[in-house]
Amino acid sequence: MGRRVKPQSQEPEVVAGNGLLHRRALLGQGLIFAGAVGSGLGAATGAAAEPLHEGPWSLNVGAPIAAYQTPSRFEAHVVRTLDNPNNVPRNSRARTPHHLLKGIITPNGLHFTICHGGVPDIDPAQHRLVIHGLVKRPLVYTVEALDRYPMVSRIGFVECGGNSAPLFSNEPIQANVQALHGLASCSEWTGVMLSTLLEEAGIDPKAKWMIAEGADSPHLSRSVPVAKALDDAMVAMYQNGERIQPGQGYPMRLWLPGYEGNMNVKFLRRIKLTEEPQMSYYESRTYSQILPNGKAYRFYFLQGVKSFISSPSPGLKLKEPGYYEITGVAWSGTGRIAKVMVSADGGKSWGEAALQTPVLPKAFTRFRMPWRWNGEPAILQSRAWDEGGNAQPTRAQFVALRGQTSKPPAVTDFPSQHFNAITSWAVNAQGEVRHVYA
Amino acid sequence: MGRRVKPQSQEPEVVAGNGLLHRRALLGQGLIFAGAVGSGLGAATGAAAEPLHEGPWSLNVGAPIAAYQTPSRFEAHVVRTLDNPNNVPRNSRARTPHHLLKGIITPNGLHFTICHGGVPDIDPAQHRLVIHGLVKRPLVYTVEALDRYPMVSRIGFVECGGNSAPLFSNEPIQANVQALHGLASCSEWTGVMLSTLLEEAGIDPKAKWMIAEGADSPHLSRSVPVAKALDDAMVAMYQNGERIQPGQGYPMRLWLPGYEGNMNVKFLRRIKLTEEPQMSYYESRTYSQILPNGKAYRFYFLQGVKSFISSPSPGLKLKEPGYYEITGVAWSGTGRIAKVMVSADGGKSWGEAALQTPVLPKAFTRFRMPWRWNGEPAILQSRAWDEGGNAQPTRAQFVALRGQTSKPPAVTDFPSQHFNAITSWAVNAQGEVRHVYA
Repeated sequence: MGRRVKPQSQEPEVVAGNGLLHRRALLGQGLIFAGAVGSGLGAATGAAAEPLHEGPWSLNVGAPIAAYQTPSRFEAHVVRTLDNPNNVPRNSRARTPHHLLKGIITPNGLHFTICHGGVPDIDPAQHRLVIHGLVKRPLVYTVEALDRYPMVSRIGFVECGGNSAPLFSNEPIQANVQALHGLASCSEWTGVMLSTLLEEAGIDPKAKWMIAEGADSPHLSRSVPVAKALDDAMVAMYQNGERIQPGQGYPMRLWLPGYEGNMNVKFLRRIKLTEEPQMSYYESRTYSQILPNGKAYRFYFLQGVKSFISSPSPGLKLKEPGYYEITGVAWSGTGRIAKVMVSADGGKSWGEAALQTPVLPKAFTRFRMPWRWNGEPAILQSRAWDEGGNAQPTRAQFVALRGQTSKPPAVTDFPSQHFNAITSWAVNAQGEVRHVYA
Repeated sequence: MGRRVKPQSQEPEVVAGNGLLHRRALLGQGLIFAGAVGSGLGAATGAAAEPLHEGPWSLNVGAPIAAYQTPSRFEAHVVRTLDNPNNVPRNSRARTPHHLLKGIITPNGLHFTICHGGVPDIDPAQHRLVIHGLVKRPLVYTVEALDRYPMVSRIGFVECGGNSAPLFSNEPIQANVQALHGLASCSEWTGVMLSTLLEEAGIDPKAKWMIAEGADSPHLSRSVPVAKALDDAMVAMYQNGERIQPGQGYPMRLWLPGYEGNMNVKFLRRIKLTEEPQMSYYESRTYSQILPNGKAYRFYFLQGVKSFISSPSPGLKLKEPGYYEITGVAWSGTGRIAKVMVSADGGKSWGEAALQTPVLPKAFTRFRMPWRWNGEPAILQSRAWDEGGNAQPTRAQFVALRGQTSKPPAVTDFPSQHFNAITSWAVNAQGEVRHVYA
């Protein structure tokens, strides 16, 4: 860039090593990223030198308004990455590009999706939800019938149990935040509380579990404790205001706030109340995690407290020394985020980040921390605590408890689930960001 | 439908005339919309009789996952209505289908749009924001530079000053809620506080106003008090997590929480600080509202406290007597919604609706009220209060203050701005819903 405006003389308060500043340091202080008018800023960026240059959009009539609008063509790179674009017979994942997003809401177009038999094209007029098993009155609901029940809206996350699985590797996988943490997203969900429907069906006191099943061809099913069903479970029908999109379970999904993604059964068609869990394929194979002692975690539902820095992160280069906002998201299956600490020196010292309000339970919380990068190598980390007193573990703590793999893990490897330890980004002197263990 | 489950015997508490129930009445009580399994429900709805009938989506592999997903093809009717689809040389409006949405977030695809010269296709690498006029240092910002500033996220509404203009007519216009109230929407906005940029530029104490100007061909400009700019104004760059879409001002817009939509200048390219307002075309023509006494409201920025019922509403027919959830949204430019009252008898008696948490300042608040429709004619109304003590006016109060037109008003008629009185929906014995004055 061209001539810069001088920063104001007041020095911001440094709260931790390698240039971390007080979380309110930047507000009200002059920064240095603007160019002065007439500074030749345009030449430096390859653009026209005149700030009020009239582009074609300033001189001509624009396009007609679309009935359902989509992002600018200049944002065509802001998409989910697909690990099975040819839809071969296995599961398929689409990951959220967290490094390109801000705020806590994931737009519906970019919410992560995992499907085990492709995305089904369900006719809502044909779809039914059946509640049966240990109930007084087996019931069947159409979409139209469910639309008449009282509804609830709630902003909250869904995270795949296998999100962040590459971090089980004993060597840091070189990938960006989308590849490493892109199987978690956050929306406003609206639907009918499952408790409303179960009370209507009348729960047999012997029922301790319910088996939820999807209508797509794999008929994925998971066992859920009735206690969770009666607590905050929802039959979700709307996401960010509109009908749930096909990748999230159209026309309805089970939403179990804070529980691992796979249990939030999409295309929900059946809930059967039972005395015992089903020991279905997914819960006995994928989601019974092997521990270092050879035993297994069974029915480990809750997503632990977790955070990651979305910016700076791999692929987002720091162009020059100076001020940056370190930002990311934190969440916990237990409840609200209580605190996020940030380090720029690989965990030797920490400063408290600002939390964007409202801080909602079992939802993404955006954190922000001002940072003055001096141009030297730095290691950025975030660590979250939740209102239940749970701390996001260090990598050493996590590996001691859960183990690691001796090679880059694939989804069929064990362990690969419920990784929630600290993520570390190393910034080198050129401003490049890499995934490291620190 | 077929055989119904009997409602449980406990009677819900009635809180107002024509069947309004206590706002928590339905929770925990058996409802009656489910069919019993084996009840022949399928035959009544034209669907297969077997609830777990395997549709083609249950037997075949689905579609590949899309990089940027969109709604189901069965939701193709959930779109914005366009009043200028051929993009003839005048302004164009796209209205949000509130009767088909739930929650408080408007998805980006369905956020209302008004453009005065079509939707511009702005290259963000060429776009500049200039701050000049009565400042110590005129500055120019690229999108890339603004991305380095500390950001803030906030959920809030934008409402066109002309939203609900058809209600100025002295006869109720027969139209649905999308046509009547579809020029208001609510998103999570993320961007840089304008105060940060103005402090960097250094405000000359003589500056009392700023002129904000857009980069699209009409170069729409509006005058904003500097006090608002320093309060909660934002240069918004992200909407519901992703970059603002072209209809909302890509790559950046001014967001003035609570102020009339037109002032939230899209495609923001210039802010000039001045001693006096500009008296620009829009503020001297459209937004200086003529009062019954012949004088004009000038610089009437704040959107008043307002609410409407989105369901039931015109076009959503009640199929039969029984329970319904009355729901809608309320908002105020002043702050939080304090209370929403609902009437089913045209305002003779009122019951308090439940407000969905979180209740956020200057944001949509979803309200809900259970209702037992007895099959007789009814008139549904909602009325909101904000934390500043402002009450949404009755129609009679509003007309006395602001006047009405003697024919269906067009946008060129006066008055047509800042309508915020109570909306009334009449339900007839057939369950059809019409717009009425009551």
